[in-house]
Amino acid sequence: MTDLIIKNATIVTADRAGTVLTGGVAVEDGRITHLGEVPDRAQEVVDARGGIVMPGLVNTHCHAADSLFRGLVENLPLEPWLQTVWKAERAILTAATCRLGARLGFAELLLSGCTSVVDMFWHPHSTARAGAELGLRVSCGGLFFDFPGMDGKTVDTRLPDAEAFFADHPRTDRLRPGTFPHGAYTVGPENLKIAKKLADDHDALFSTHAAETTVEQQTVQDSYGASVIRHMEALGILDARTILAHCVHCDDEEIAILARSGAVVAHNPVSNLKLASGFARIPDMLEAGVHVTLGTDGAISGNDIDMWLALRLAATLHKAASGRADVITTREALHMATLAGAEAMGLGTVTGSLEIGKAADLVVLDTSAPHAVPIFDPLTHIVYSAGRADVRHVFVDGQWRVRDRALTVFDMTETLDEIRALVPAIKESIA
Amino acid sequence: MTDLIIKNATIVTADRAGTVLTGGVAVEDGRITHLGEVPDRAQEVVDARGGIVMPGLVNTHCHAADSLFRGLVENLPLEPWLQTVWKAERAILTAATCRLGARLGFAELLLSGCTSVVDMFWHPHSTARAGAELGLRVSCGGLFFDFPGMDGKTVDTRLPDAEAFFADHPRTDRLRPGTFPHGAYTVGPENLKIAKKLADDHDALFSTHAAETTVEQQTVQDSYGASVIRHMEALGILDARTILAHCVHCDDEEIAILARSGAVVAHNPVSNLKLASGFARIPDMLEAGVHVTLGTDGAISGNDIDMWLALRLAATLHKAASGRADVITTREALHMATLAGAEAMGLGTVTGSLEIGKAADLVVLDTSAPHAVPIFDPLTHIVYSAGRADVRHVFVDGQWRVRDRALTVFDMTETLDEIRALVPAIKESIA
Ligand SMILES: [Zn+2]
Ligand SMILES: [Zn+2]
Repeated sequence: MTDLIIKNATIVTADRAGTVLTGGVAVEDGRITHLGEVPDRAQEVVDARGGIVMPGLVNTHCHAADSLFRGLVENLPLEPWLQTVWKAERAILTAATCRLGARLGFAELLLSGCTSVVDMFWHPHSTARAGAELGLRVSCGGLFFDFPGMDGKTVDTRLPDAEAFFADHPRTDRLRPGTFPHGAYTVGPENLKIAKKLADDHDALFSTHAAETTVEQQTVQDSYGASVIRHMEALGILDARTILAHCVHCDDEEIAILARSGAVVAHNPVSNLKLASGFARIPDMLEAGVHVTLGTDGAISGNDIDMWLALRLAATLHKAASGRADVITTREALHMATLAGAEAMGLGTVTGSLEIGKAADLVVLDTSAPHAVPIFDPLTHIVYSAGRADVRHVFVDGQWRVRDRALTVFDMTETLDEIRALVPAIKESIA
Repeated sequence: MTDLIIKNATIVTADRAGTVLTGGVAVEDGRITHLGEVPDRAQEVVDARGGIVMPGLVNTHCHAADSLFRGLVENLPLEPWLQTVWKAERAILTAATCRLGARLGFAELLLSGCTSVVDMFWHPHSTARAGAELGLRVSCGGLFFDFPGMDGKTVDTRLPDAEAFFADHPRTDRLRPGTFPHGAYTVGPENLKIAKKLADDHDALFSTHAAETTVEQQTVQDSYGASVIRHMEALGILDARTILAHCVHCDDEEIAILARSGAVVAHNPVSNLKLASGFARIPDMLEAGVHVTLGTDGAISGNDIDMWLALRLAATLHKAASGRADVITTREALHMATLAGAEAMGLGTVTGSLEIGKAADLVVLDTSAPHAVPIFDPLTHIVYSAGRADVRHVFVDGQWRVRDRALTVFDMTETLDEIRALVPAIKESIA
């Protein structure tokens, strides 16, 4: 018998054809069995009350546990800002606090309908454990950094730790281990290649920051005689299993390199605004055939991790930056936030769109608020009007994660209290 | 006896000194009597549960009733977009539909904690009636337009209608009548001066669109031999009772004109992004001493009317546009969204900040969600993390407007049904 039916909905599948249906979604053993017309009966029937059912959002660049430091350091230029943030991280981060922070970030993501996330952070074991506790899909793994890290570890520990992460975490559809060098200005050529090889050996994701700021570009140019993207191309680390976060500063040739390499760009508009990084050339990238996905970056540069804000900005910011009101369609924007992200995570056949046989990673959007009236086109509503608070229910693999805007999977009370108790120490760390 | 006490809160007053208190707010006869320490007893005591109490937001540029057409026309360049929108408006707008639309817009504003709004639209009598029904502070009045209007009226009716609006609507702290010429490219010099004189005769607000697009600038330059701001200065219509919406395209001299005239700039970042208008030079304006306030514009260019999104973008967009992460402080951004707007509406002594003797226009923010943990500084939380859904309670003049995220003042059920029933006709109007 069918396990779950969600009925009385407009179904935005976010599939390649842009299919929109009315009716319901049926789920059996965690997978979608029917879209539109559904069986009469199921173990559980959920009335979407005329709302929208859509796939869970996919966040391809996050540092969930950095939510511990949300709003701690503000109104500073980038360099002193980063120095202060690192000071706090060094003082506070342990396996235990990283787990609290990852829970905090993942709770926020789930409540806002984000069901898959690529997360780069210190103590990735903690990230993985928090991901399992909250029940969303996570890609994480060993962080590479050519300086003493915020986790207190030294350069020589990075490779064995990253190898151990793969050994400890067999690949599943819930957890995708990968390697995560911080960036080309903090990780040298040899270690970038080592991290990429390790990922390749496990057919795994490799993700790093790239071309976020002009200072970074200059540093890499001065050190290696090439811009970030050219440097990475020369190292042979750009391919379809590589996610580059940001790519704000790219010339035409670099965009061509990204396109022909198949590398994925994780666009983080919220962070790029707040940190004054600039405007990534997303319309040009899409035209060149670059695979563009969407990310929130961490809450220290956000200050929340809200895929809805990222989605809205991905769809509108580039209109103003290019002076063209018709760039980035609603379908393109939604694709970045869903299926393109799932494909980048190697989960394109699992999630990112509503299709028969795929996992039931579902968001039920409430459309009863004034800002949802009228709706002429559900994609337009999703991209330009909806927000995190419209997310009423969330399922991963057909299992409840959020019900009537409350987490069902994990009681955050104790975690939130423990985090609040850390506040004095966090303040003290930068005093 | 005290009518209302809100206790157990962090109080962000948004006053000129940036005062933040802990404790409560007490209200008698609609006015704030205590901030911080409050009496023990009152007719009604509301527990803020550790949340934030702040002043209601002030939206200085809106077209509330345009919410009827939210999302109707998308993915078009500006000129064909506007032609299509106007076609729909001409077919649909009547005094009755404008009232429905204004209720829709005002409901959205109140639910998101916006308690004062400057609204420019056809059939301003309907706007005023909807404002009274919903119970927020509205400035509206006769719209001037040198072509047949979307309300079916002709140019010669504009002045008598605007005069009648003043006659019918004595100035109160809830309703501030004004005059609203559409813009310098749609209203000739004589009518701009007539509209300004009429406003001045009533010591009233005068508001118009200005310098939103390069096409507008070129049109005005070609017609009158001066850019929009210079043209308006030459007409003598710029002073502290003038609100200019947008001012996206201003050179240094125009910014100097805005500063020395005392004219107010209503910044609408959400609209400026979506319509590809560009980036207003807000940091330069603030440095020059221009009075900058915040607006949502209408939902046809939004697609919602969310002051929180406008606030977040006002604080972050200009960091990226200027390449400086330290421009626009949280205090500057919050000031734009509150007291600066109230002052621009002529309500600076009434609302826009929490001060003893001022009206109790209050927002109680919920801070229990993961994206509100931790909070190191409440202003940072308000500007960079909070959103419309965090607004739990709203009061105007100490009276309930929103309680536990639901409107208390007006039952929108019938209005929403009537609007949904308009959808086929709206679609038909542009078919
Ligand atoms: Zn990052
Ligand atoms: Zn406008």
